[in-house]
Amino acid sequence: MKIAVDAMGGDYAPVETVKGAVEASRELGLEIILVGDETRIKEELSQHDTGNNTVSVIHAPEVIEMGEAPAAALRKKKNSSVAVAARLVKEGAAEAMVSAGNTGAAMGAALLGLGRIKGIHRPAIASVLPTVKGRSLFLDVGANAECDPQNLLQFAVMGDIYSKKILGVPAPRIGLLNIGEEETKGNPLYMEAYKLLKESELNFIGNVEGRDITGGAADVIVCDGFVGNVVLKFGEGLAKDLLSMLKEEFKKNVFVKIGAALVFSQAKGLRKKIDYTESGGAPLLGVNGVAVISHGSSQARAIKNAIRVAGECVEMNVVNCIKESILENPNGDDDSANG
Amino acid sequence: MKIAVDAMGGDYAPVETVKGAVEASRELGLEIILVGDETRIKEELSQHDTGNNTVSVIHAPEVIEMGEAPAAALRKKKNSSVAVAARLVKEGAAEAMVSAGNTGAAMGAALLGLGRIKGIHRPAIASVLPTVKGRSLFLDVGANAECDPQNLLQFAVMGDIYSKKILGVPAPRIGLLNIGEEETKGNPLYMEAYKLLKESELNFIGNVEGRDITGGAADVIVCDGFVGNVVLKFGEGLAKDLLSMLKEEFKKNVFVKIGAALVFSQAKGLRKKIDYTESGGAPLLGVNGVAVISHGSSQARAIKNAIRVAGECVEMNVVNCIKESILENPNGDDDSANG
Repeated sequence: MKIAVDAMGGDYAPVETVKGAVEASRELGLEIILVGDETRIKEELSQHDTGNNTVSVIHAPEVIEMGEAPAAALRKKKNSSVAVAARLVKEGAAEAMVSAGNTGAAMGAALLGLGRIKGIHRPAIASVLPTVKGRSLFLDVGANAECDPQNLLQFAVMGDIYSKKILGVPAPRIGLLNIGEEETKGNPLYMEAYKLLKESELNFIGNVEGRDITGGAADVIVCDGFVGNVVLKFGEGLAKDLLSMLKEEFKKNVFVKIGAALVFSQAKGLRKKIDYTESGGAPLLGVNGVAVISHGSSQARAIKNAIRVAGECVEMNVVNCIKESILENPNGDDDSANG
Repeated sequence: MKIAVDAMGGDYAPVETVKGAVEASRELGLEIILVGDETRIKEELSQHDTGNNTVSVIHAPEVIEMGEAPAAALRKKKNSSVAVAARLVKEGAAEAMVSAGNTGAAMGAALLGLGRIKGIHRPAIASVLPTVKGRSLFLDVGANAECDPQNLLQFAVMGDIYSKKILGVPAPRIGLLNIGEEETKGNPLYMEAYKLLKESELNFIGNVEGRDITGGAADVIVCDGFVGNVVLKFGEGLAKDLLSMLKEEFKKNVFVKIGAALVFSQAKGLRKKIDYTESGGAPLLGVNGVAVISHGSSQARAIKNAIRVAGECVEMNVVNCIKESILENPNGDDDSANG
């Protein structure tokens, strides 16, 4: 299986992207195509023992920077690393793409290059969140700042499949993020989405409040991309700031400091649990191919895990499962536009 | 100064509400009117040394329970403790009301009883969030599940005043919660609100992303009540679950367990920092009077602090300051409806 990796995307590219790709190739037995500045990539590759690993390079002369406006950048830079990676998937030269670069550009490249699955109105970015009980899939976390109720239903359908196929949950409990448990809570978007979800074949468990997310109240939590993005980033900031405040507090007393050092050195399990690098990137669900978007600050480990996730999506045939599920869904077949 | 306290509102009412009111009376020198079941309240009062404190009781025969639908309950129970508390403020028998009961009912009672400030389209619930740098005011956290750009501007105007008068910030930095820093980010609601804020006289610093909230990126963070409610509750859940996950992790090794016990016993400063009971309830800004809504799970300490906040709002004349500010604001005078 071949995975195209945007070698130039991300804060630590190409150093960490190449390192992560080499590790993925070695540990996961996947064939990796590194896309980007050939000279820079080969320079990085020479730092690693690639031995029997199957890592190849495809040159792409341009790079879309983190701060660039995605749409304009994609129009201008037809041969950017992320656009070429998407093209490789479209042309069948690779089976999935992974990028840790500019999220909007990665999404745009995937959408333009691969098109939407027939019947899917809006693709969504799904993020795997650590919870007290394990993990939950949370979507949309930023692809759509504005949604209609139908979009939220489709996010649930796609999340259901991803949760089953990739996270191994047999009958995912689908929750709708809302400001109260009752059916009548929220704004018209969420009230209407509640009705659609209730009428669907999904294992819909009703509304889930913000405070229940990390408790693992649902296996799939659906919301619009504005709320999802704010919540995801807020969680990232809060977890970071809370732990650093805790550490600051501990420094105030030398005995406590020793205790804290002991504690934190042992808390690897928790760190692993709340570490986004473990979940390995967020799939863009609803495009006609596998595209995994990794955090901009991804280092090798996160890149490797994003590649792993991409490989699993290909292996489990997630795209076809979504296609079939949308065909079966009476609400999903009123749009045949694609791309 | 007289503060009417809904003695029957909250998970631990009237035990903790009465206790908190007695403490507020003793420590803050405020005159408290406890509103609710006279017999029950007097029973509780007899447990405390009220000495020279000025705590009086006004009987209200009905209670709106936490799970009741607010609008219907307010229509049916005209003499509920929360409705009577609002009426006391309206009639001038008290200068502020405090309730830890059903949030929707407290909001509705305040709105029906006190009416809106002329020019304010929608009152908002403001919450004080702890940050790495101190604290930020975050609104709306749930009064309005649907907003227009004008509402968000008015939330900013009210937040600005509250931040100056109550939190002591001389020139509050106003941020708009959004999914990116650029002016063009977000959905039409947020893009239009950005323009209004930019044109205003406020010290608007632009968009603030979810990850910057706890870092203290702005003194006042404005958003619609759907997003604000989800974020606030998510933060509550995450902080709780993260600390409990940390404790679980520590239990796995006996030495670490000892270290952790030492650490947690010393981390009082942090606990105080992230403890909502310290911030003492959220003011409902935009109603024509002082109304402070406290968390449903408030115990005496939180009630006392909510009463303190209510007292400060009266003392600092927050309601009149909002009135003046809205009159000066050209966008705020196109609605003279009230109540």
